[in-house]
Amino acid sequence: MKKLSVIKIGGKVIDDQALLGQFLQDFAELEGPKILVHGGGKIASDFGKRLGIQPKMVEGRRITDSETLELVTMVYGGLVNKKIVSHLQALGEDAIGLSGADANVLKATKRPVKTIDYGFAGDITIEGVNKSRISQFLENGLIPVICALTHDGSGSLLNTNADTLASVISGALSSEYEVRLTYCFEHKGVLSDFEKQKVIATIDIKEYESLKANGIISDGMIPKLDNAFEALKSGASAVTVGHFSDLQAMCKGNSGTLIEMN
Amino acid sequence: MKKLSVIKIGGKVIDDQALLGQFLQDFAELEGPKILVHGGGKIASDFGKRLGIQPKMVEGRRITDSETLELVTMVYGGLVNKKIVSHLQALGEDAIGLSGADANVLKATKRPVKTIDYGFAGDITIEGVNKSRISQFLENGLIPVICALTHDGSGSLLNTNADTLASVISGALSSEYEVRLTYCFEHKGVLSDFEKQKVIATIDIKEYESLKANGIISDGMIPKLDNAFEALKSGASAVTVGHFSDLQAMCKGNSGTLIEMN
Repeated sequence: MKKLSVIKIGGKVIDDQALLGQFLQDFAELEGPKILVHGGGKIASDFGKRLGIQPKMVEGRRITDSETLELVTMVYGGLVNKKIVSHLQALGEDAIGLSGADANVLKATKRPVKTIDYGFAGDITIEGVNKSRISQFLENGLIPVICALTHDGSGSLLNTNADTLASVISGALSSEYEVRLTYCFEHKGVLSDFEKQKVIATIDIKEYESLKANGIISDGMIPKLDNAFEALKSGASAVTVGHFSDLQAMCKGNSGTLIEMN
Repeated sequence: MKKLSVIKIGGKVIDDQALLGQFLQDFAELEGPKILVHGGGKIASDFGKRLGIQPKMVEGRRITDSETLELVTMVYGGLVNKKIVSHLQALGEDAIGLSGADANVLKATKRPVKTIDYGFAGDITIEGVNKSRISQFLENGLIPVICALTHDGSGSLLNTNADTLASVISGALSSEYEVRLTYCFEHKGVLSDFEKQKVIATIDIKEYESLKANGIISDGMIPKLDNAFEALKSGASAVTVGHFSDLQAMCKGNSGTLIEMN
């Protein structure tokens, strides 16, 4: 089976031109078929402030109202996506920027309203990933650069978490590729001791449960690791979580935290 | 030779949701391979105002400075492009949004500084059109929706006139398709009498010269018609200029002004 690298970036590396340049250089040097999934960093919040669009929160959860959807469509799908694509093209990498609406690659469902109306937030499963179209792009030598936007097939774009997208894309393509998923973020991996920046080398599902119970893994790490385990359940061969400056080492399994089923 | 329709829209039809919806319905009903090229309408100016980005003019010419480039990247490549693509997808049309950087489809040259520095403005010729990649998308059943952004191959996006893009794309693809180029705008065609809205049925290159000399064709119509004639010189089989609400009739040659070499 052919190998495929799925890399997810977000946060600081997107906001800082120099860090992004270094990361994209490392990404360009990865061999074989690859996909980059990106969020929007703080750029969306910055433009939101300038446009007078206040972040909408209900019970501590972020809401995507219609003007926020316009904002993220501009920033994720326009500014950030095209900046990454044009940079990769300059490095000789034949990148193609995609939202979920483009070539219908990612179809999601608007999150049903229960106690909270999340607005234009999209939930996606591996069935929503157009794996034949994405495979075709890969076979044709293209490098999909996918932003955190899906669509509902009825004319609306939806805001979908980039970690989740990387997970479902990895899961869906596992029927055709041996997929290695790498989550890049601001830490060296999953930390057992934040003060000492001590990285846990591997975590399986049992250890994950006990680390959550002990409060060692908490907050934002939980959905990220849930996404990591979902990718493994759907067939991804390896998932690593680590620092964006360690991409090369992570893709060889020499850095970050390796997530394993058991 | 297979037929290909290249349609260009801009202005009012992009700004008005109802007009855009009707236009896209008409576009969806066109048979065979097709490409949509779009500008940004007034949305870019509106967001520019909200962001405090003043339109930059030097000697009456619009300048694309770096913040204007960011603005048009967000609006053309993000907001407008993804809105059109998701709408077409809802109509069952397998649209894919592209800037010139995506899959390296449109490579341009930053306009050289002579008396005026136009900033990030890109000049493109038919050699800059990646016709093999665009043909591949068409062969694979995709409908390219191309915004008015090119790239320089060195990491920078460039702002390029959408009329010019439609012209060079039509010219480049004429080696592989019988291309009909349709410029949609706010008039019924090239007008011989603005008051009476009298449409000139056909214009050839000689008549064009005399209509310019008489001042009947002036201002913004001149670059549009220059682009029309350029497309014909490069091999396009037919070019029509007319109203965006007459797309179906124009594509059959029953509305608008038909531009002919002689």
